[in-house]
Amino acid sequence: MLNFKLILRILGFLLLVEAVAMLIATVVSVIYRGPDFFALLQSSLICAASGSSLVIFTRKARKELGKREGFVIVTLVWIVFSFFGSLPFILSHSVPSLTDAFFETMSGFTTTGSSILNDIESVPHGVLFWRSMTQWLGGMGIIVLSLAILPIFGIGGMQLFTAEVPGPVADKLSPRIQSTAKSLWVIYLLFTGLETVLLWMGGMTLFDAVNHSFTTMATGGYSTKQASIAYWSSPFIEYVIIIFTIIAGTNFSLSFLMLSGKFTKAIKDEELRYYLFFIGAFTLIIFAGLLITTSLGTEQAFRNALFQVVTIISTTGYATVDYMHWMPFLTIVLFAVFFFGGSAGSTGGGLKIMRVVLLLKNSYYELRRLIHPNAIVPVRFNNKPVSEQIINNVLAFFMFYFIIFAGSSVLLMLVVPDLVSAMGAVATSLGNIGPGLGVFGPAENFSTLHPAGKWFLTFLMLLGRLELFTVLVLFSPAFWKK
Amino acid sequence: MLNFKLILRILGFLLLVEAVAMLIATVVSVIYRGPDFFALLQSSLICAASGSSLVIFTRKARKELGKREGFVIVTLVWIVFSFFGSLPFILSHSVPSLTDAFFETMSGFTTTGSSILNDIESVPHGVLFWRSMTQWLGGMGIIVLSLAILPIFGIGGMQLFTAEVPGPVADKLSPRIQSTAKSLWVIYLLFTGLETVLLWMGGMTLFDAVNHSFTTMATGGYSTKQASIAYWSSPFIEYVIIIFTIIAGTNFSLSFLMLSGKFTKAIKDEELRYYLFFIGAFTLIIFAGLLITTSLGTEQAFRNALFQVVTIISTTGYATVDYMHWMPFLTIVLFAVFFFGGSAGSTGGGLKIMRVVLLLKNSYYELRRLIHPNAIVPVRFNNKPVSEQIINNVLAFFMFYFIIFAGSSVLLMLVVPDLVSAMGAVATSLGNIGPGLGVFGPAENFSTLHPAGKWFLTFLMLLGRLELFTVLVLFSPAFWKK
Repeated sequence: MLNFKLILRILGFLLLVEAVAMLIATVVSVIYRGPDFFALLQSSLICAASGSSLVIFTRKARKELGKREGFVIVTLVWIVFSFFGSLPFILSHSVPSLTDAFFETMSGFTTTGSSILNDIESVPHGVLFWRSMTQWLGGMGIIVLSLAILPIFGIGGMQLFTAEVPGPVADKLSPRIQSTAKSLWVIYLLFTGLETVLLWMGGMTLFDAVNHSFTTMATGGYSTKQASIAYWSSPFIEYVIIIFTIIAGTNFSLSFLMLSGKFTKAIKDEELRYYLFFIGAFTLIIFAGLLITTSLGTEQAFRNALFQVVTIISTTGYATVDYMHWMPFLTIVLFAVFFFGGSAGSTGGGLKIMRVVLLLKNSYYELRRLIHPNAIVPVRFNNKPVSEQIINNVLAFFMFYFIIFAGSSVLLMLVVPDLVSAMGAVATSLGNIGPGLGVFGPAENFSTLHPAGKWFLTFLMLLGRLELFTVLVLFSPAFWKK
Repeated sequence: MLNFKLILRILGFLLLVEAVAMLIATVVSVIYRGPDFFALLQSSLICAASGSSLVIFTRKARKELGKREGFVIVTLVWIVFSFFGSLPFILSHSVPSLTDAFFETMSGFTTTGSSILNDIESVPHGVLFWRSMTQWLGGMGIIVLSLAILPIFGIGGMQLFTAEVPGPVADKLSPRIQSTAKSLWVIYLLFTGLETVLLWMGGMTLFDAVNHSFTTMATGGYSTKQASIAYWSSPFIEYVIIIFTIIAGTNFSLSFLMLSGKFTKAIKDEELRYYLFFIGAFTLIIFAGLLITTSLGTEQAFRNALFQVVTIISTTGYATVDYMHWMPFLTIVLFAVFFFGGSAGSTGGGLKIMRVVLLLKNSYYELRRLIHPNAIVPVRFNNKPVSEQIINNVLAFFMFYFIIFAGSSVLLMLVVPDLVSAMGAVATSLGNIGPGLGVFGPAENFSTLHPAGKWFLTFLMLLGRLELFTVLVLFSPAFWKK
């Protein structure tokens, strides 16, 4: 029997956190004297009331927290946060429909960044700030999750770095989680602050600078402008965002290493090197392609190529150009990048660089095994042998990712008439990226999608954000059997 | 150092076999008094001369045949056969260009069935017979390969059934190969004969009946008519072809079991059951879809659905309707079937049912392992535990299949302007199916493709036909290192 009381209690506490976050957005609306003050205040109070009721009614919950409760809590947090997080959109009438508001909020908390807004500039400052904050909070949540919590479940690339901790978790782990979380959040805050200053210097208003720093560091990609980053037409702003997007897509432990002076150790990390290699390689192909097929100048072609590759591989999804207008080959090369994703332990989604590299290495080793069947050579990563168990986990992850991608693309064809748009929508949701292909390209948005399709995509965002397994185990009969 | 002399010697002997096959086509051209008599005779003589020269010049070859020579021979046979097999097309001027003739022949020997012919009825009988025969021979070759030779290399689904035989192969295995091959060919011949009789009874000419039996049993799909099976508009013919296509897509060992009276044992085979289940499930979806979205009668909707599903899952690829005109959702459901493929040990290509089932089972087991990390439960198939090694091999196969599919689709975008057509062409080539999507749909052919694209697709056909690994190892540095 699951300890439902404790699950509700923890959700209650977290709702109180969401209430505080909404209060901050309320303060922003006061500063800008926006019409959204009451909507935000109301939302915050509803969260606070619901949260405290839950906490009070579950006082007597047993303090036993097992692995299974962990899976349920993690999945529920994102769903509950998204439902309550929709309130500011609905109550302020910025997004009247629940479907759309939930889509926008889940897209925020999962740091996806797909939007249904057709006129972002008409949304009042407080709600816009809340929208960016859903991503920033989601990013913060995912760092803790991927570096401190998921490895305990045996999920996510990071178990490579942590010893397995079997059995009930809460007591043993909480001090470690707290200390890890603290240092990571300091770094997260630091980078957000630094980027804000630079974007502000680059010509953004302070409001825009803060919002974009929020959504960069979360690899979310929500913008305060309908035209996204293209609005500023500023190479400086684009380069600043490129740099911080690259950082946001790397393992935050590495940033921690670098900031504590262990620069050489950090730079030797194999995942980082592959991450930079993939960015370089794809940028080069698209840069060359743009030079050949367009009349863009060298710097602009390079910047456009680099920006798109970085924003997609990190699963951020800002727009500076409409890649649907590129030569089809280049668009599809960029679509291939949709599947790479950021590094493990970053705010990025997708398959993740570490998995891609392990998959490629293992495939090559499998060829070698055909020639030398008796030579047992384990795959190595960062000069350490990788256990069979991790390789199997990575292979199974890839299988699920592919099956879900393919199956969902087929299903989405029920409401989307062309395969390319359907595949783009599924890939961008599952990878937590933002823009898709075809009718959901970077110059379009998801407002035109059938409501059933919108709910389906929010499910995919959640699946992708929680590394598939966290959500999928809930659907396995073995999970519910005693 | 590879034993090149022996490799050439074996190729020489096999070319003599090809010469004999061409001689049979020559006889057919005599019967129909076709203009292609000299072209076929010439081709046969060129094969015979080349083959015997090779055999004579390599008399002194050491009789040592290792695994590495095996990989090289298997890959080279298909390439060499396709080059020599292009001669009848080129010399008879039916297909003047080498690119097109090679495409057509490789598509034949790999039992793919993608064609560049725009007016099949204008091709003389002898050459048409040769075209169908390339598939029949290719199918025969693949049965021996997948049931007797590839398992020795550790490739293909069939190693599940055979004990591993390490080290040099030739002497130990040849008696077994010969006896296996003999009984399988008897069955292959038997089914071909039976289908010929039924199709003839159904209203085809004897010539058409023989040709279609050849290409059904090989799951090839070449037709003697431009309109393919739709030409006859005969439910009887369609049902006959459906039944024999299903048979051709099952493991020939099972047919052997059935024909030797062990019916119950055969019917209990897990792969067979999943194969029939997938056919049933996909037929049902498409049948329902066609009933809802078209004005077809029940029987015709059912027959159309069943025919397309069977012809695609078995990787045959005959056409009775143009599925590009279905509601997009149904077209894409059928496209999903492109990736399943026939059973291991059949003439079908694709991922193969056994692999698909093992992949799905293993994925589900991986979820269970998350909940019970200490319970080691191996995946079971046919009530036997499947070794980790085989699971890894299947996972690696899937990885390669997917990477090659995705990477090739991107590459093909250099000469094909839309992604759907590119993906369809790659999937159909890699899966040895025949028709694709979009501009390469069942009502179209590959004649319009850029020559570079044609050569590229023939490479994919070969890759797919030889279970990827056989060809890929040749590209691995480990293969060439002593």
